[in-house]
Amino acid sequence: MRAVDIIAKKRDGLPLTAEEIGFFVCGLVTGKIPDYQVAAWAMAVLLKGMTLRETVDLTMAMVHSGETIDLSGLAQVVVDKHSTGGVGDKTTLAVAPMVSAAGLPVAKISGRGLGFTGGTLDKLESIPGFQVWLSVERFLAIARDIGIVVAGQTADLAPADGRLYALRDVTATVPSLPLIASSIMSKKIASGAQAIVLDVKVGGGAFARTVEDARALARLMIGIGQAVGRRMTAVLSNMDQPLGAAVGNALEVAEAVKTLRGNGPSDFVEHCLVIGAEMLVLGGLAQTPADGRARLARTLEDGSAWNRFRAWVAAQGGDVRAVDDLSLLPQAPVVETVPAPRSGYITGQAAREVGLTAMSLGAGRARKGDRIDPSVGILLGPKVGDWIAAGETLFTIHARDQASAADARARLLRAYSWSDEPVSPPPLIYEVMRGG
Amino acid sequence: MRAVDIIAKKRDGLPLTAEEIGFFVCGLVTGKIPDYQVAAWAMAVLLKGMTLRETVDLTMAMVHSGETIDLSGLAQVVVDKHSTGGVGDKTTLAVAPMVSAAGLPVAKISGRGLGFTGGTLDKLESIPGFQVWLSVERFLAIARDIGIVVAGQTADLAPADGRLYALRDVTATVPSLPLIASSIMSKKIASGAQAIVLDVKVGGGAFARTVEDARALARLMIGIGQAVGRRMTAVLSNMDQPLGAAVGNALEVAEAVKTLRGNGPSDFVEHCLVIGAEMLVLGGLAQTPADGRARLARTLEDGSAWNRFRAWVAAQGGDVRAVDDLSLLPQAPVVETVPAPRSGYITGQAAREVGLTAMSLGAGRARKGDRIDPSVGILLGPKVGDWIAAGETLFTIHARDQASAADARARLLRAYSWSDEPVSPPPLIYEVMRGG
Repeated sequence: MRAVDIIAKKRDGLPLTAEEIGFFVCGLVTGKIPDYQVAAWAMAVLLKGMTLRETVDLTMAMVHSGETIDLSGLAQVVVDKHSTGGVGDKTTLAVAPMVSAAGLPVAKISGRGLGFTGGTLDKLESIPGFQVWLSVERFLAIARDIGIVVAGQTADLAPADGRLYALRDVTATVPSLPLIASSIMSKKIASGAQAIVLDVKVGGGAFARTVEDARALARLMIGIGQAVGRRMTAVLSNMDQPLGAAVGNALEVAEAVKTLRGNGPSDFVEHCLVIGAEMLVLGGLAQTPADGRARLARTLEDGSAWNRFRAWVAAQGGDVRAVDDLSLLPQAPVVETVPAPRSGYITGQAAREVGLTAMSLGAGRARKGDRIDPSVGILLGPKVGDWIAAGETLFTIHARDQASAADARARLLRAYSWSDEPVSPPPLIYEVMRGG
Repeated sequence: MRAVDIIAKKRDGLPLTAEEIGFFVCGLVTGKIPDYQVAAWAMAVLLKGMTLRETVDLTMAMVHSGETIDLSGLAQVVVDKHSTGGVGDKTTLAVAPMVSAAGLPVAKISGRGLGFTGGTLDKLESIPGFQVWLSVERFLAIARDIGIVVAGQTADLAPADGRLYALRDVTATVPSLPLIASSIMSKKIASGAQAIVLDVKVGGGAFARTVEDARALARLMIGIGQAVGRRMTAVLSNMDQPLGAAVGNALEVAEAVKTLRGNGPSDFVEHCLVIGAEMLVLGGLAQTPADGRARLARTLEDGSAWNRFRAWVAAQGGDVRAVDDLSLLPQAPVVETVPAPRSGYITGQAAREVGLTAMSLGAGRARKGDRIDPSVGILLGPKVGDWIAAGETLFTIHARDQASAADARARLLRAYSWSDEPVSPPPLIYEVMRGG
C-alpha cells in the first residue's frame, strides 16, 4: 500500500477502504507518511468528501492511534457533552454540576480555546489554584469520589487527530465535515464517552452559519456515534448573539456561579436546562426531557448543584473562597461602562465580533501558546429583542488598560444593530435531534 | 499575505491574483512556504482548476524564479519543440538535424526519461562520449558554430517548477492541466524558446488518452505561449502504439541514424516531416507546411541532415564512429527474435505495455536516479494494420539476460491484439492546431 495511491483514489472521489484509512492514520501518527502527503489527502477529502462508513473508519482509526480512558465503572452510561464552540459558552461550568447533582457523574476531558471562542480549561483556570492537569488515576478518583471532574488531556488520546488538526489549521482544510466530525468524535470516544450530547452552535459566531449546515454536521456525528454503539443527541442552538451576558474567563466563571446560585441570565439558564435534560435522558436518569429538566431545576433550587460545584473546585485544588466571594476572582484594572448611543430595540449583537473583541482584550488566543488574561472581557447588557433607552448601560468592558478599552468600546458599538420597531428575540434552541 | 489564505481561496474555487501567485511561487522556491502548504494548494488547483490568466501568471512566476537563457542572437525566431512523452519517441534525434540542415538553428534543453517514456538525454548518452552537460556558454557556442545543440539543464531554469514537480509526484497532483501546462511552458520559455511546436501525444501510451484531452492541453499551452508573445503550434499525434520500431536508448539512436540516412520506418519519417515542417513555418523559413516538408525531405535526400547529425555528435564529444558503424553502439548480450504466435492482422500494440516492458528490461527508470542500460530494448516488426504470418518475426528483444528476455517476451505477446479481418492503420496525426 502506498500513500500516493490512497491520495489519488480520494482525489478521484472514490471511497477508501477501512484498510487504506487505517494505513493512512497509522502513517500519520508514526510520521511515516510525510506532512505534504497528509496535506494533499486532507484537501482531497475536503473537496471530494467521505461517506459515513469512511468517516466512521477514520474516527475509529484515530481512536486506536493512542490511549483510551475507561469510564465504564463510573455509571451505567457515562454521558459527555460537546459544544462546537461559541462566544460566552460557559455551559459546562454550570451544566456539569447540575447533572452531577442530579445523580449522573460527569468525567470530562476538555480543551483550551483558540480563536474567538473560549475554552473550558481557560475558564476553570481563572479560579485561583484550579488544577486542570490530572493523571488519569487522579481524574478517575475525583470522578468516583466527587461525581464530577473536568480536566485537560494528559493521556495520549487520538494522537493522529492532534497531528492532523495541526496540519489542517495551516493548509486551509479545517472546514471539512468528515474531518471535523471525526476529530470531535475520536476525542470523545477515546476519552470514554458512552453517550454524547452535542451542542451544535448555529449562526455568525459559529462554524455552522445556517441550521442546515448545523444539521448536516450533527447528523454526521450522530451517525458516527451510533455506528460504534454510542447513544447520541444533538441540540442545535443559536450563536448569532453570545450566550448569556459574560464573555471572558473569570467573568464567565462568575456568571456560572450566579447561575448555580439561582441568579443566572435567563437564556443561559434555559440553555443549561435543555442540554442537561438531554444528558439525563441519555444517562437513563430521566424518562423524558421534561422529567430531566424538572430534576435539574430542583438542583438549582435546593442548592445541590452549587454545593457540587464547590466540592468540584475544592477537589481540583481551586480556592473555594474565590467562588464564594466573586471579588476574589481576577479583576481587570479598567472597568468601563458604555451607555447606549440611542434608544431602540436591539436587532443584532454580532457574536463573532464580540468574541474577536474579547480576544483582542486578551481573553483569547490568536495562536496556540498565546497567554490569556483571565480578568478581561465583556459583560453584555440587553440582548437582541430588548429595548433600551439612550444612556442606559449597553455593555461593560473589563480591560487591562484604557487604550484597549477604548478600542473594544468602538468595536463593540459597531457590533450592534438597531430598530425603532419591536423585534422578536431569536430562538435559543432550533431543534433537538435524537439518535434512533 | 499568508499562504493559508491563498490555499483557502483556491479551495473555494476563486481565481488567484498575479500577486498571490507570485507570492506563492516565491515562497515555494525560497522554501518559505513549507511542502505541506504547497501540497494542499496543488490538490486544490487540481480539483478546482485555474483560469488561463492564472496559468499564464503561474508560468511566468516560475520563469522568473530562476535564470533564463537568451537565444535571441541565434536566429530571427528560435523554435523549440516539446513532446508530452511517448514510447519510441526519438523525434528530436532526427528532426533537430533535419531542421538545422534546412537553415533553422536548434538549441534545445532536454530532459531525462522517467516512467515508461524515454528521455532524449538518455538516448544521446548511449552514443559513446556524448556530453549532455554543457555550460550555458558552451551550449550557445555549439548552437552558433554547428547550428544544433541539445543539452541537459545546467542553468537554474524555473527552479520553482522543479520543486513543485517533485512534490506533485508524491502527492497525486501530477494530472492537472494548468500544472502540467505551466510546468512545460515555464521550462521552454526559461530556456529561450521564441516559438514552440508542441507534439501532444494521444492514446494509451500518453498522458492524454483521448483527442479531446490532448486538445484541451494543447489549447492551454498555446494560450499561455500566445499570452506572452510566443508563436505556437500543436501537433496531436497517435500514441496508441509506439512511434517507429525501436524502443530503448541505443536502439532508438540507431533508428534515428537510419532515418537520417534515408532508411527510417515510414511512420517515424512522416512524423518527423510533420513536426519539422511546423518548426520551419514558425521559424519563418517556410511559407507553408508543404513548403517546409519539401525542404526537410531534401535534407534527407542530399545527406545534409545526416552530415549535420555527425557534426553535432562530434561537437558534443560523441564518438562519430559509433553512428557511422552502428555495431559500435552498446549491444545487449541477449538478442531474442520472437515469432508471431498466429497469422492475422495486428489490431493493437499497446504502447504503454511496450514502454513498461522496455523499462523492466532496464531501458527506463521506475524512479529518479535509477541507472538505465543503453543497450536493452525492443525492436518491433509489423505495426497495427499489418498482416503477419505465424512464425514470422513479430519483435526482437535486446536484454541483459535470458530471464529478463523471457519475461519481456511473455509480457509483449500479451500487448498485441489480433483479427482475421483487415483493419485500417490508426491515423499518425490527428490534427494540427496553429495559434492565431
